[in-house]
Amino acid sequence: MIKTDILIIGAGPTGLFAVFEAGLLKMKCHLIDALPQPGGQCSEIYPKKPIYDIPGFPEVLAGELVDNLMEQIKPFEPGFTLGERAETIEKLGDESFIVTTNKGTKHHAPVVVIAGGLGSFEPRKPPIPGIQDFEEKGVDYFIKDPEVFRNKKVVIAGGGDSALDWSIFLAEVAEEVSLVHRRKDFRGALDSVEKVEELSKIGKINLITNAEVVDLKGDNSLKTVIIRHKDEVRGEEEKTADHFIPLFGLSPKLGPIANWGLEIEKNAIKVDNAYDYQTNIPGIYAIGDVNTYKGKLKLILCGFHEAAIMCQSAYQRINPDKKYVMKYTTVSGVNGFDGSKKEAKREVVKNIN
Amino acid sequence: MIKTDILIIGAGPTGLFAVFEAGLLKMKCHLIDALPQPGGQCSEIYPKKPIYDIPGFPEVLAGELVDNLMEQIKPFEPGFTLGERAETIEKLGDESFIVTTNKGTKHHAPVVVIAGGLGSFEPRKPPIPGIQDFEEKGVDYFIKDPEVFRNKKVVIAGGGDSALDWSIFLAEVAEEVSLVHRRKDFRGALDSVEKVEELSKIGKINLITNAEVVDLKGDNSLKTVIIRHKDEVRGEEEKTADHFIPLFGLSPKLGPIANWGLEIEKNAIKVDNAYDYQTNIPGIYAIGDVNTYKGKLKLILCGFHEAAIMCQSAYQRINPDKKYVMKYTTVSGVNGFDGSKKEAKREVVKNIN
Repeated sequence: MIKTDILIIGAGPTGLFAVFEAGLLKMKCHLIDALPQPGGQCSEIYPKKPIYDIPGFPEVLAGELVDNLMEQIKPFEPGFTLGERAETIEKLGDESFIVTTNKGTKHHAPVVVIAGGLGSFEPRKPPIPGIQDFEEKGVDYFIKDPEVFRNKKVVIAGGGDSALDWSIFLAEVAEEVSLVHRRKDFRGALDSVEKVEELSKIGKINLITNAEVVDLKGDNSLKTVIIRHKDEVRGEEEKTADHFIPLFGLSPKLGPIANWGLEIEKNAIKVDNAYDYQTNIPGIYAIGDVNTYKGKLKLILCGFHEAAIMCQSAYQRINPDKKYVMKYTTVSGVNGFDGSKKEAKREVVKNIN
Repeated sequence: MIKTDILIIGAGPTGLFAVFEAGLLKMKCHLIDALPQPGGQCSEIYPKKPIYDIPGFPEVLAGELVDNLMEQIKPFEPGFTLGERAETIEKLGDESFIVTTNKGTKHHAPVVVIAGGLGSFEPRKPPIPGIQDFEEKGVDYFIKDPEVFRNKKVVIAGGGDSALDWSIFLAEVAEEVSLVHRRKDFRGALDSVEKVEELSKIGKINLITNAEVVDLKGDNSLKTVIIRHKDEVRGEEEKTADHFIPLFGLSPKLGPIANWGLEIEKNAIKVDNAYDYQTNIPGIYAIGDVNTYKGKLKLILCGFHEAAIMCQSAYQRINPDKKYVMKYTTVSGVNGFDGSKKEAKREVVKNIN
């Protein structure tokens, strides 16, 4: 059982910054994230894209922002449970919570903060009838271990970077790679597009454009995919396949948190923005893009503010008898849990006689 | 008459960042500040002090933060009225406002935003009976033009950087400089303290410690200051003086804004934090340290959030028929009023045949 003061679900920029504000108030944090590294979307989806609206940064790459935040929170030694998704929550008699992940890891804390961004990212599934019957029986939405596809017949669908890059990679691994895309235009890094073009010319990738996978056939496992060409003369074609890998991007889903009894509105968690960003369940807060309230803006800088305000309220919940209000760090400095100390130089005090 | 979309009173970090958020929504801003340069306290009081709680900056000097913000808002070409204090406000029939400064400069805007920090900074006055009668007749709280003191007898009071630095400077200008301080300990930069010590030894500064100025005498103008020594044997001494300059720091005062009919609580302006940080007067908002609401934290990062939310509401006030919600800049980029354009590189879209 992992024990902490504030359990934060979601390690994107808002969740990370909450560690800092909590640390100033001497509270320890532990973060859970379904992704394998901290930073949320900023790390996973657009680490090399610039952001222009972080106050004080005329321009910063999303990945840099995450690196800076990790550096900023280092003195407060946050714990991480990465690559696991928060599944269930249980309230104990003392009003504290136990959160368990899909891998069974248990976390115990008096305060739970959902900083889940747009939710956990789930694959966008194509609207093929019965596709769910072939999941784990030939249909894969993620590629975890490419060796699974060695010497197999693989059909990949999609027109973006993932589809391009995995087609290139698997061309050397699989017996046969077909890349099906409903247009002729591919949207990805220039060198990936060119490489696919080249592999297609030498017959290493079977490129099927202006076409869609419309049906799947098989018994216990996938045997055939049905591809429909836009060109009506060509019509439908059957293709033998051990694996069908649709790569249409990730779609954010609130996921299991949606069943925690929290008040939900438009796929986001309602919070009390007139005070502390607490949800309808006392002790559970929601900050950043995952929450909603009148006038809500889904901006990273708003998540930072919500994190600070939440921490002040969490402090009162954890320390009902103490009174401490967050102050300018210029006055109070930063005292890390690791013994580190940062503070502004004091003026010299000198006696003249 | 200066015309703008949003008139911002106070050019500290919060006021400056509001220019950026307003710019993203195509609204122009003009800022008024009593100080001679933008940046508020960060520039005036602690430009060289580090701040540790700006999200994404493990450490940043207050002056650097202001420079970064000025760079960030440059594309939106803000106007400035500096060195003037907003004095009066008038609401016109069309619900717009005219704000006039102490120097008579008039500004016209449909939205007024008070980002006044702790207020305008006013000198801390010593409790000397009748001191106000000698203001502008020998008593000065600021030194604007040192030439005023050439060949005069000057008494400075205080034990901090300002008192030390002006004693050093005026030692070369005035006929006689006395520095009166009620302790022997001076609090200031080491080299200033040492320089005063040195000038005192060679008789260029008349250093009077463990003493206070307790009375002022004169007819139309100041003639004599009465200095009381802590040492009772020494008692009181009279000192001929053309000028008395008490330098006891600045104290923030809400100032004339306190008379604008805004709801005030604990020297701060009450706002609706459940929505848009608007005051009790529609069209007047208050953001940053100058406002108050349940759970308010006086942190720069909170001012940034309040600025963003306020801009969205101001947009609706100015454009009641349009609908536009602030988006991630990674998606929408930044289009400056100066014709500049920043945006993330697009993916290549390439046709494979």
